[in-house]
Amino acid sequence: MPTVDVHTHVYPPSYITLLRSRTTVPYIRNFPDAPDSARLIILPGEDAPTAPGTARGRPIGPEYSSIAHKLAFMDAHGIAASVISLANPWLDFLAPDDAAAAATAINDEIDALCAAHPKRLFHFATLPLSASAGAVAAEVARLASSAVPHCRGVIMGTSGLGRGLDDPALEPVWAALEEAGLIVFLHPHYGLPGNVYGPLAGEYGHVLPLAIGFPVETTIAVARMLLAGVWERHGRLEVLLAHSGGTLPFLAGRIESCVAHDGHLKKEGRTERMRSLWEVLKKNIYLDAVVYSEVGLRAAVEASGKDRIMFGTDHPFFPPLDGEETEWLSVKTNYSAIKQAFDGDESAAEAVLGGNAARILKLDL
Amino acid sequence: MPTVDVHTHVYPPSYITLLRSRTTVPYIRNFPDAPDSARLIILPGEDAPTAPGTARGRPIGPEYSSIAHKLAFMDAHGIAASVISLANPWLDFLAPDDAAAAATAINDEIDALCAAHPKRLFHFATLPLSASAGAVAAEVARLASSAVPHCRGVIMGTSGLGRGLDDPALEPVWAALEEAGLIVFLHPHYGLPGNVYGPLAGEYGHVLPLAIGFPVETTIAVARMLLAGVWERHGRLEVLLAHSGGTLPFLAGRIESCVAHDGHLKKEGRTERMRSLWEVLKKNIYLDAVVYSEVGLRAAVEASGKDRIMFGTDHPFFPPLDGEETEWLSVKTNYSAIKQAFDGDESAAEAVLGGNAARILKLDL
Repeated sequence: MPTVDVHTHVYPPSYITLLRSRTTVPYIRNFPDAPDSARLIILPGEDAPTAPGTARGRPIGPEYSSIAHKLAFMDAHGIAASVISLANPWLDFLAPDDAAAAATAINDEIDALCAAHPKRLFHFATLPLSASAGAVAAEVARLASSAVPHCRGVIMGTSGLGRGLDDPALEPVWAALEEAGLIVFLHPHYGLPGNVYGPLAGEYGHVLPLAIGFPVETTIAVARMLLAGVWERHGRLEVLLAHSGGTLPFLAGRIESCVAHDGHLKKEGRTERMRSLWEVLKKNIYLDAVVYSEVGLRAAVEASGKDRIMFGTDHPFFPPLDGEETEWLSVKTNYSAIKQAFDGDESAAEAVLGGNAARILKLDL
Repeated sequence: MPTVDVHTHVYPPSYITLLRSRTTVPYIRNFPDAPDSARLIILPGEDAPTAPGTARGRPIGPEYSSIAHKLAFMDAHGIAASVISLANPWLDFLAPDDAAAAATAINDEIDALCAAHPKRLFHFATLPLSASAGAVAAEVARLASSAVPHCRGVIMGTSGLGRGLDDPALEPVWAALEEAGLIVFLHPHYGLPGNVYGPLAGEYGHVLPLAIGFPVETTIAVARMLLAGVWERHGRLEVLLAHSGGTLPFLAGRIESCVAHDGHLKKEGRTERMRSLWEVLKKNIYLDAVVYSEVGLRAAVEASGKDRIMFGTDHPFFPPLDGEETEWLSVKTNYSAIKQAFDGDESAAEAVLGGNAARILKLDL
């Protein structure tokens, strides 16, 4: 069974040009104290003027936009096919009037990249979320048509139309996704407010926002969808969660218990009609295997099922620090977690490495 | 082997009097729209004037302060001994001049309650953290003496002396705890800023702050201690983490990977000298078993070891909503998780239910 990477990003050339044209986050710039290194600044607060060069964003090279680099990375890591997606923050920051055309252009640009590499590249498309629910639903319908044949779902952040994924204004979007049968790849970007990391956070590089802020953002977003009843109304809506669900497999029990013990929810009559998070994890949610440990991966498997977990790399993020290794530590760690979690169950390992993705995303490999 | 509850709280009578005397969080009050129900308001923002009665804090009755209620709860749930602790927010809010005397008085008051019920009650004491590191260290030394014979450790929030647990000003406190051989029971209280839960959060009761804010607060606090090198300097410092480590067992792999891939940390020379989180989990950290699922509990066991996990209830929080059941759902859920996680390994289940606590906390049962 070929290995499939479902969590792998690209900023196509037109998006790089867009980032280079900007002067506020997100943007790409060469800074005076590190003039030889173009830095990609995407996270809120990453461009604090007091941050030294190595704490500000990350170096950006051709691996972020070049499909040749993507294919070389895939070959070096035994990856047969990749389902590529625009990386965060997608088009969230565009002016409403620009978003719809930009989404169509980017989605067509990425679909053409996939067309040039048949059976090797597929993609999750991008939505014009700063426009309107109607514009988003229209692009969803287009993505499901033969106009965008390599599209296998959409990637989405947690801000929705600006007010989060529990926003009732998203109803037409969820309905359109359900109707189109397109999976939502839910991915964090906004993290947590910087002050939660304390006054010394600047000394810790990006560890706390990336290691904790990202997965917690995903966790909160899904909990809000659950509490708002999104899956009660859209029982066929399927969501692939980045980073093995953030922290959901571990916290699902606590979330369920807090729901069951909340006097206010009970008085409002919400408790009974709310769907069980455990059931949603097994029926509506898929998880990637980007969790960097067999401990986390086993919890993900127990929460969602070994037929619902899919290998990923997060390429081109988390490259080797010295830039020398062909085989990336971040990828090796996730391969090793799969090997350990499925020791003695070769067919489950193969399913997670590629079989699940091929079946769930209908990939012709 | 008797069952021991290491996560069980009490607000002794003097603390209840203190809360009733206050008019800002934390406090106890009867509100005009629910005059018959005294409400305990302890979490930040829980007293929003727009919140309806059932969304504001929680009803408080004698179960929060009465040892007779604690013992009846223990009897109803087969708990032989409890290591009681003052519940959040402890003495964090006291004026610096008042804190030291209040800590001594409360610790002596709770120790006397334990003395009245030999072999059934022990306690984690409270520190005067709003005072000074010196005052805290002095109380730690007193707690280790024969003056407070039933003390088996200290309970602590994540704010430390006001700037978090990575604050260098805490060095004398960590040193005193190490010297005294007292375990720190690290417990959340402050959660996350309310805006992370979105504009509809008021409709979801306390679910998001309790189910996600609490465990994430613990996770961030421990990550900050690790990044600040607390365990490099205090190799014997032992910490018991509430709620099975927040989310640490699940996120440890991601945290380790983010450390290993952080260019800034590497440039600063921190990466090499930092202790592995996996190693700290197995050598310095203990976890309670308050995680409400066998999925979470298995991850906790894999992260820290079955000899380092200890049963807990979080009593008197999470009572049955209708107030009728003798056996609490929240406790049954955690008992059931232990039964399922250790199916076929009776000795491990007994260790988690009581043996580990007896050994680690030196309880004469």
